[in-house]
Amino acid sequence: MAASKSSTPLLKDELDIVIPTIRNLDFLEMWRPFFQPYHLIIVQDGDPSKVIKVPDGFDYELYNRNDINKILGPKANCISFKDSACRCFGYMVSKKKYIFTIDDDCFVAKDPTGKEINALEQHIKNLLSPSTPFFFNTLYDPYRDGTDFVRGYPFSLREGVPTAVSHGLWLNIPDYDAPTQLVKPLERNTRYVDAVMTIPKGTLFPMCGMNLAFNRELIGPAMYFGLMGDGQPIGRYDDMWAGWCTKVICDHLGLGVKTGLPYIWHSKASNPFVNLKKEYKGIYWQEELIPFFQSLTLPKDCTTVQKCYIEISKQVKLKLGKVDDYFNKLADAMLKWIEAWDELNPSGASTGVPNGPAK
Amino acid sequence: MAASKSSTPLLKDELDIVIPTIRNLDFLEMWRPFFQPYHLIIVQDGDPSKVIKVPDGFDYELYNRNDINKILGPKANCISFKDSACRCFGYMVSKKKYIFTIDDDCFVAKDPTGKEINALEQHIKNLLSPSTPFFFNTLYDPYRDGTDFVRGYPFSLREGVPTAVSHGLWLNIPDYDAPTQLVKPLERNTRYVDAVMTIPKGTLFPMCGMNLAFNRELIGPAMYFGLMGDGQPIGRYDDMWAGWCTKVICDHLGLGVKTGLPYIWHSKASNPFVNLKKEYKGIYWQEELIPFFQSLTLPKDCTTVQKCYIEISKQVKLKLGKVDDYFNKLADAMLKWIEAWDELNPSGASTGVPNGPAK
Repeated sequence: MAASKSSTPLLKDELDIVIPTIRNLDFLEMWRPFFQPYHLIIVQDGDPSKVIKVPDGFDYELYNRNDINKILGPKANCISFKDSACRCFGYMVSKKKYIFTIDDDCFVAKDPTGKEINALEQHIKNLLSPSTPFFFNTLYDPYRDGTDFVRGYPFSLREGVPTAVSHGLWLNIPDYDAPTQLVKPLERNTRYVDAVMTIPKGTLFPMCGMNLAFNRELIGPAMYFGLMGDGQPIGRYDDMWAGWCTKVICDHLGLGVKTGLPYIWHSKASNPFVNLKKEYKGIYWQEELIPFFQSLTLPKDCTTVQKCYIEISKQVKLKLGKVDDYFNKLADAMLKWIEAWDELNPSGASTGVPNGPAK
Repeated sequence: MAASKSSTPLLKDELDIVIPTIRNLDFLEMWRPFFQPYHLIIVQDGDPSKVIKVPDGFDYELYNRNDINKILGPKANCISFKDSACRCFGYMVSKKKYIFTIDDDCFVAKDPTGKEINALEQHIKNLLSPSTPFFFNTLYDPYRDGTDFVRGYPFSLREGVPTAVSHGLWLNIPDYDAPTQLVKPLERNTRYVDAVMTIPKGTLFPMCGMNLAFNRELIGPAMYFGLMGDGQPIGRYDDMWAGWCTKVICDHLGLGVKTGLPYIWHSKASNPFVNLKKEYKGIYWQEELIPFFQSLTLPKDCTTVQKCYIEISKQVKLKLGKVDDYFNKLADAMLKWIEAWDELNPSGASTGVPNGPAK
């Protein structure tokens, strides 16, 4: 383990940490040993006149609403306000290959031996090793030290595919919806499951934005967190939306999505009554969204993330517009997001996979 | 944990333990505290004149090759000889709802606290709680104490579907193919991953027969371990074949397949040179078998496991016969297996799911 640990590259100049916040970032003190080498992109939500204090010694840039409006101009309204969905602005202005995003109520968790978990190091491991979306390996991540592909795993699939997303988990407060929070207010996640796995091709999952890393060059333009918060009929579906779009695009382009380690310590449950108000439309819309994404197919000529995303936006308008007019607005915002992404990232560095769609 | 433990039904009169063997069953001594309440079906492989000793106090029936020939008559040649694939004969003659099958080189494993793992109890838990094949739950089995469905999991899918298969894992000697055994002779599985999960719909996996339980009424006729061993060109693909057929049928009928806990302690690696001889054709055939099973679709009127299995046999002949004539023989044996199953199980107790295929 020690050997494998030291062999994980830091990627100090290739990774930005994106944090959406409305308060002083005291939580960074606990992360100092792990985050200090990195550049932070702080997206300040809410009142832009409020001053957010960042502990000394961190290298950061901070954007408030005024900055977002100035940088994006008429396209700024694709970035949510008064909702942590605003974090995706940070993905757009980053110039790095990798993004790690974390909520400011997340702290360093401990593994079962009592050792503090370097979440970022585990995400980097996950992103730098391949994924295996086409066949399930019963011993989990086959690339991890001490394990491999089991008997019956086709040899032609053992090279794997590039990993686009690493989805980490949470000890203590689990990421439950409002109804489950209300029914089980005292439930805590105490189980440390020592595994990372690829989510198989064709399977959707609920992607949580609390502890998430991704390869911006491979999948960045799909990581749009939608229209939430101020002036919008729903909240708390920002990361879900991004996850569904991202998974469908990864499946189409032959990219991998992993979930499992690392854990962070999620300190405080949000208010279930407030959450219910934000979620209730999402809870029933979701029953139409999941079949929509499950049956969504992208044409072969969608060879870049942007092309895929624009196609999804069209299908959203076509098929979800009748669920609620909100989805027409969202589809338009998706297009604006891609336009803004391409303006801020003109090099084409994030235009997807050289080989095009998976067969 | 104590509460949930005592609440797991023993199913003493509803479950048979099937053990294929060529030697005295001394390994049962270690399992005595867990297996003694159950009925054992021992399938003796190889020389029928050899006497297999079973430790005192176990309730069992034993079948050797002469018995198999007598019971199945002209259909007996669908049961493999000189290969542990013969175990599936035990599934056929059982009259119980559930089967647990284990190899005679598997011992009781310990969990990280040092406690002996009651593998059978965990399999029963897995089989009695639903599966969730249509959407991935990032906190693993949502029905387990202390966990639930996470935010973004559609409520309409939270009831789950009946579980047909529980696939357990192995500490110590991992289930590797011969090439991996040869390359990594010293690799041991020491990682205890505290999770059970549903293998998503549409995803195939390598099902190992070493530590496996299933609901015979729901899926029994699909658990045919094929033609292996004496007179056949391959070995060590018996459980894989059963797993691929089973998974495709479970996906079609809306049944669940779980993998993860429980672990057993796999004591001894089989000889990699012998294994290579058995496996080498399978290793390249498999490259055609996986795409075949991945693209296999069953018509709507296949509403029982038997009908599904007969349809698969037809498609095997049609599409795999050209890979090797072995698959024509296998397709015929699959039909014989179903005929024999139905003769021995005339009640129709195992004719599948009342609701028919999943939508």
